[in-house]
Amino acid sequence: MTLNVFSDPRSVAVVGASADPAKWGYWLARGALRGDGRRRVHLVNAKGASIEGAASVRSLDELAAHGEAPELVVLCAPAASVPAVIDQALAMGTKGFLGITAGIDAAHGEPGLERRLAERIRAAGARIVGPNCLGLYDAATDLELAWGTFAPGHLAVVSQSGQLGLELAGLAAHEGLGVSRFVSVGNQVDVTAAELLDDLVDHEQTRAVVLYLESFADARGLVATMARLRQAGKPVVVLTVGASEASRAAAQSHTGALTAATDVVRAACRAAGASLVETPAQAVELAHLLLGGPLPSGRRVAIVSDSGGQGAIAADTFARHALQVPRLSDVTRGALADLLPAAAAVANPVDLAGAGEQDLSTYARVVDVLAASGEVDAVVLSGYFGCYGADTPELVERELEVVGALAGVVGAQGRPVVVHSMSHDSVAVRSMREQAVPTMHTIDAVARSLELATTMAEDASRLVPGPVPAPTAESGKALDYLAGRDRLAAAGVAYPGAAAVRTAADLRDAAARLRAPYVLKAGWLEHKTEVGGVAVGLADATAAESAFVAMSSRLGEGEYVLEEMDRQADTVELIVGARRDGSFGPVVLVGLGGVQAEVYRDVQVALAPVGEAEARTMIESLRAHPLLDGWRGRPAVDVDAAARVVAALSRLLAEDPDLVECEINPLRVGPEGAVAVDALVLAADRAHPGERP
Amino acid sequence: MTLNVFSDPRSVAVVGASADPAKWGYWLARGALRGDGRRRVHLVNAKGASIEGAASVRSLDELAAHGEAPELVVLCAPAASVPAVIDQALAMGTKGFLGITAGIDAAHGEPGLERRLAERIRAAGARIVGPNCLGLYDAATDLELAWGTFAPGHLAVVSQSGQLGLELAGLAAHEGLGVSRFVSVGNQVDVTAAELLDDLVDHEQTRAVVLYLESFADARGLVATMARLRQAGKPVVVLTVGASEASRAAAQSHTGALTAATDVVRAACRAAGASLVETPAQAVELAHLLLGGPLPSGRRVAIVSDSGGQGAIAADTFARHALQVPRLSDVTRGALADLLPAAAAVANPVDLAGAGEQDLSTYARVVDVLAASGEVDAVVLSGYFGCYGADTPELVERELEVVGALAGVVGAQGRPVVVHSMSHDSVAVRSMREQAVPTMHTIDAVARSLELATTMAEDASRLVPGPVPAPTAESGKALDYLAGRDRLAAAGVAYPGAAAVRTAADLRDAAARLRAPYVLKAGWLEHKTEVGGVAVGLADATAAESAFVAMSSRLGEGEYVLEEMDRQADTVELIVGARRDGSFGPVVLVGLGGVQAEVYRDVQVALAPVGEAEARTMIESLRAHPLLDGWRGRPAVDVDAAARVVAALSRLLAEDPDLVECEINPLRVGPEGAVAVDALVLAADRAHPGERP
Repeated sequence: MTLNVFSDPRSVAVVGASADPAKWGYWLARGALRGDGRRRVHLVNAKGASIEGAASVRSLDELAAHGEAPELVVLCAPAASVPAVIDQALAMGTKGFLGITAGIDAAHGEPGLERRLAERIRAAGARIVGPNCLGLYDAATDLELAWGTFAPGHLAVVSQSGQLGLELAGLAAHEGLGVSRFVSVGNQVDVTAAELLDDLVDHEQTRAVVLYLESFADARGLVATMARLRQAGKPVVVLTVGASEASRAAAQSHTGALTAATDVVRAACRAAGASLVETPAQAVELAHLLLGGPLPSGRRVAIVSDSGGQGAIAADTFARHALQVPRLSDVTRGALADLLPAAAAVANPVDLAGAGEQDLSTYARVVDVLAASGEVDAVVLSGYFGCYGADTPELVERELEVVGALAGVVGAQGRPVVVHSMSHDSVAVRSMREQAVPTMHTIDAVARSLELATTMAEDASRLVPGPVPAPTAESGKALDYLAGRDRLAAAGVAYPGAAAVRTAADLRDAAARLRAPYVLKAGWLEHKTEVGGVAVGLADATAAESAFVAMSSRLGEGEYVLEEMDRQADTVELIVGARRDGSFGPVVLVGLGGVQAEVYRDVQVALAPVGEAEARTMIESLRAHPLLDGWRGRPAVDVDAAARVVAALSRLLAEDPDLVECEINPLRVGPEGAVAVDALVLAADRAHPGERP
Repeated sequence: MTLNVFSDPRSVAVVGASADPAKWGYWLARGALRGDGRRRVHLVNAKGASIEGAASVRSLDELAAHGEAPELVVLCAPAASVPAVIDQALAMGTKGFLGITAGIDAAHGEPGLERRLAERIRAAGARIVGPNCLGLYDAATDLELAWGTFAPGHLAVVSQSGQLGLELAGLAAHEGLGVSRFVSVGNQVDVTAAELLDDLVDHEQTRAVVLYLESFADARGLVATMARLRQAGKPVVVLTVGASEASRAAAQSHTGALTAATDVVRAACRAAGASLVETPAQAVELAHLLLGGPLPSGRRVAIVSDSGGQGAIAADTFARHALQVPRLSDVTRGALADLLPAAAAVANPVDLAGAGEQDLSTYARVVDVLAASGEVDAVVLSGYFGCYGADTPELVERELEVVGALAGVVGAQGRPVVVHSMSHDSVAVRSMREQAVPTMHTIDAVARSLELATTMAEDASRLVPGPVPAPTAESGKALDYLAGRDRLAAAGVAYPGAAAVRTAADLRDAAARLRAPYVLKAGWLEHKTEVGGVAVGLADATAAESAFVAMSSRLGEGEYVLEEMDRQADTVELIVGARRDGSFGPVVLVGLGGVQAEVYRDVQVALAPVGEAEARTMIESLRAHPLLDGWRGRPAVDVDAAARVVAALSRLLAEDPDLVECEINPLRVGPEGAVAVDALVLAADRAHPGERP
């Protein structure tokens, strides 16, 4: 069922239109009337008031009496009257409802009423957006049915919060970026955000999408939709909430404690080639780059400035945003020196030393050399450029010519040129934005924008994980240590030799078969360490037997495990875990092990399953990754082996609906392989299945 | 010698004035003329051109002939003519020169010419700002001698980069914040930034200062000046460069490798009660709070919004900026519920649920309850407030009344109210800024501003370290291990028992006197670990002797040290070091020890010396500080003992000019004390003193 009625209805009726400028019904009426050149617009006002010079009818009945049948009805009437309005409209053949009115259930004292109204609407072959939504806007079809005013452009905004969506659109407009389509989704009793995103895949006017959601129904479906939008050339920027409340699992594992809700959303975005940002301002900063020109294909940036101080600040700022400011080669420095005075710095940053003031075309020539050099992935111009014409009117034309030349460099070299200008919106600044040279008012915005865009470019070719079988249970019972080890070993994880031990005789047998030194574990306990259920460094069979006697006298009978102690030298310890997120399903986590890593929260999360290449990227994205590459004379460790373990755990959870969670903490990664010395495996308890999620 | 000639000269002459709007000489002439109601303004233009309707003379001689004697001369003439102009002016009794012209040395082919000109000027009892500066501005005295235009206000800008200073002033103006005084210091051949700062202590129009410096002469003097400005109610915001180039010592210590140049500047700022920011935009964001209303006395923030989504985004954003959003008490929630509809959220964030739209005064009443509750240190209003009057003109008056009420709450409760408004500069927004209710256009800016201001408020009462004796030498020679230990032990650092060992017999004697287990160290080597010069865990005398035999056969003769192995349980290892910064003198560093800490760079740096209270604060500011407070069942460690070590090392370096650097890595901090198991002490080599810094 198409959503065309919400982007280009043939006719619209605003029910609850008002002449009072303080009321929603006024804004919606006024906006609707702006489209009266393209469609029939009907205003329904109980008093029949004239609004903005247009007549209104007193009810939908009057329209019906005249044989009118509005295709889209805007529900802005009091909540008490909404059900009747819906019935009237359906009888007239209305195909779509835009539900502005809020609190319908409460007004009728009927929980679930909105949903039943939605079912009635669907049954009649119609659709409803909202209710409790702020409205919608479409730039190409003169459709303005919302509180607020919008500037036309190429950014689509789909938002679960009407006012946050307005803030986004307003910040974008302030920066010269307009909106192609705006939809405030309200209560989503029928039309969902996901459907609206799907509807944008073929929307020509849209070149990027900002999505604000607080909750994620059919989350993996949404991931697939965002990936489709990316492939259609309309990358998605996501904003959500919940970063400050870590979604702490009932402390059954470190993995749960380390994974916040937004970590999972970020993982989902990366899988989709979308970008998760933290605020509306960041969304707009990224939009500058998405809407203008090519994305950077790497992190190397050249800085050009007409001020040494501004160039240095830019370099420091970019370093803080994971960008590199590489020293240019002799060849490139020589080419720049040929264009500039002797006093000019040319190593990167490039300081024009007054040459720009002397001849504005210097800006374009320097940028061209840098963009063509192949030594950088983006060129940033920081400083006074963009102000010349505003401060000295005779320079307007000249400056605009240079703007055209900069745009030409972008087109010819296929690398982004981004400008930080001391002018907020001069004619030159506007011209740059129109010609695919993104221009911002602070170096901070340029840095954040480049950082986000570069990450997004790197994520372009990830595999999108498909749907996974629904889990059997939400919570599970921990397998005993040996059983857990076996489960993970069957998936390819390497463990040291081990044997079950229940008696001293068992212990002696086991010690004879296994290689010293040993570790003794109380295998049936989930939190062994905290109760003294782990004894390490048992040098020989005698020491192992003493430890067994001591431990079992404290902890009693059970399945103990004697395990060979892993003696790899030069290891780095990682934590690897996989669990189920309530919305996005199975996720896998890898992080640095040990107490310090919990304090620094140096973890990477991805939707499961992941392949080994992606697992390797996750590990290399850890802040502590230098420790893996050979640190202070130690050898590099076997990252590939660690990546295979990450991939294996992710596949286990993705493929086996009985598994609730699994974790290895630590995985000891040495130069020649990775050995697990722990296994936490929670599986659905078939005796006590627990609640279905 | 006062600097009054640069803030309110009785007369000014612009030498090199121009009628060409593309030239500096035009801007300076035009700006100077704006003050012609307050002072005599003379324009000197070689052609005698009329500029902006004012006549000019062809040379200073003509002025002299008319008996005129300009008190301040703006040097905007070609570099070749500047020395002659200076001589002419001095002969006429000029008291001050504003040196705009750049490249004077190069134009004459005479390195050092600028300095000699400065000496000539000083000898005549006059002063010079610059040369190579962009100009100056003073809001209270109609003094505008700069490229660019300024809006009058209360922010002073002193900058070593003229254009960066302009960017600061421009961003501030864009946010409705004006400038009290602007000075671009240029080459500082005479008047320094420090003098200009001193001159602001009694400058009534100034309420905050932004300082951009790339280099710090008399750095400790500058710290004292910034502290004086803070005490005078004019807090200083500092911007510098160099964050991306760690000032790596010649790898003699980890401390050197861990300390970046900006870490030291940050330490200096904290000592002065100043704030180090990273960009001009951040400086302006902080200025909003410094110029408007009280500073927050803690990190607890209440959020009020008319949109649930915006409130949640605000909460997440504040959490990322080290601010707390505490749940409100039953009492306060009840008081809010009395003011708001049933659907309103009141726990914090507070969501007005439409109540603000119904009655604008709700905003003020809710903010008042929160500000008066004592449960928060600042109240933030996020969303549509500030837009009502702009969107619905009949609401202008009402909205302004509420603005007044908000200002009243600030005055009555003494706590800041900060607004994030979706309007960039409505009448209401401007009114809030004028009434000490800082108002910004993004929640990001509010968060950064509050974070910086809160830190600044916490730093208000630090002791400013005084001057320290100049060091004897820049580099030093490492003392042998025992000698180094003794030096630090004399300062109060606890070490395990130890003895010098040169032969196997020595070893046996030492083992008999000391308690096993032991550690054996090749005491004369600086990088013992890397060459196998440290053997730990030697269980008894026999093991110790074997280790000695093995080690000495590899490393040869020397002063070995047998040391008792520290066996404290539940320790956390720290690195503590003190070294000398080229500008700011002795600094002390504390950080988490171990390889992971180097990767995460979790360190705190302060100017030395520090007292124990400040040392304790440094330790508690480490990101890993939760490990010290008792982590996962382990006992808390003795932070006071660690603080005493930090303070002791800081005093050593501050008081003894012969010491170049000292470091303990690791300091093992347990529940009952702190024991050092390492000592690196570099002292001036009196045989080969090295270069004086």
